Amino acid sequence: MRHTLSVLVENKFGVLTRISGLFSGRGFNIETLNVAPTQDATTSRMTIVVKGDDAVLEQITKQLNKLVEVIQVQDFQDGQYVDRELVLLKVNVDSKTRSDVMQICDIFRAKIVDVAHTALTIEITGDESKVGAFLELMAPFGIRDITRTGKVAMPRE
Amino acid sequence: MRHTLSVLVENKFGVLTRISGLFSGRGFNIETLNVAPTQDATTSRMTIVVKGDDAVLEQITKQLNKLVEVIQVQDFQDGQYVDRELVLLKVNVDSKTRSDVMQICDIFRAKIVDVAHTALTIEITGDESKVGAFLELMAPFGIRDITRTGKVAMPRE
Repeated sequence: MRHTLSVLVENKFGVLTRISGLFSGRGFNIETLNVAPTQDATTSRMTIVVKGDDAVLEQITKQLNKLVEVIQVQDFQDGQYVDRELVLLKVNVDSKTRSDVMQICDIFRAKIVDVAHTALTIEITGDESKVGAFLELMAPFGIRDITRTGKVAMPRE
Repeated sequence: MRHTLSVLVENKFGVLTRISGLFSGRGFNIETLNVAPTQDATTSRMTIVVKGDDAVLEQITKQLNKLVEVIQVQDFQDGQYVDRELVLLKVNVDSKTRSDVMQICDIFRAKIVDVAHTALTIEITGDESKVGAFLELMAPFGIRDITRTGKVAMPRE
């Protein structure tokens, strides 16, 4: 099963290495991961998306909780949280296809952030299904380059 | 100096641990990092923001290039790239302050993604200076929770 983990950690060097090591040591491939400081500069929050065996993930979660630098681990279940991702992508265009790409961007409220003769750089944000649908529509034009932040998530009140 | 590195890697398990280990082994603290697959599922792109000595970072970059799983390393210089970050934050509100928070969101084109009696969950995207200015304006209301993706970057054409 796919899991979205939100891990609050002390902002110390080596913590990322230790945590990613826990996953790779068990043969778990991390699908996406991001880490950045919180409102309190002494702590960082990591959001990790992993796919794999539930029982093994439970063991990893227990081991995470044992690390002194780990303050809190949350395993988000579907529907209990808001999730968003940001993607920057460069799509091939020519004089014929440019307006098609721009129309699709409009529908998805995606922003064009850089323009060249043969390419548009586009910023899109949304949950997984929105971003996925947009990327599927862009694929036929030719995605030259892409960089994704991976998911961030926050529990609903 | 502060550097934004974009590293294209093979999507294999253990790569993140090896790369973050290179930085922590040299005493470099990673400010933000994110990693996610590209349009080609066999590769992932990492964006790493680090602050530290230029000479040491050059050594790390050389070592990165020696890793078999590393396909390309780019060290972005100011102005040559587009950068964006996505932040989800939960801000305290009451009947008096709610409209103030909503007005500031409007100006920054931030989106309110979840509403509760005493808090709003807000999504904001932008470059560093925009996100920084927004967070400064939100701080007096009380930021209850925050999760940031860290920067992603793409070279301008």
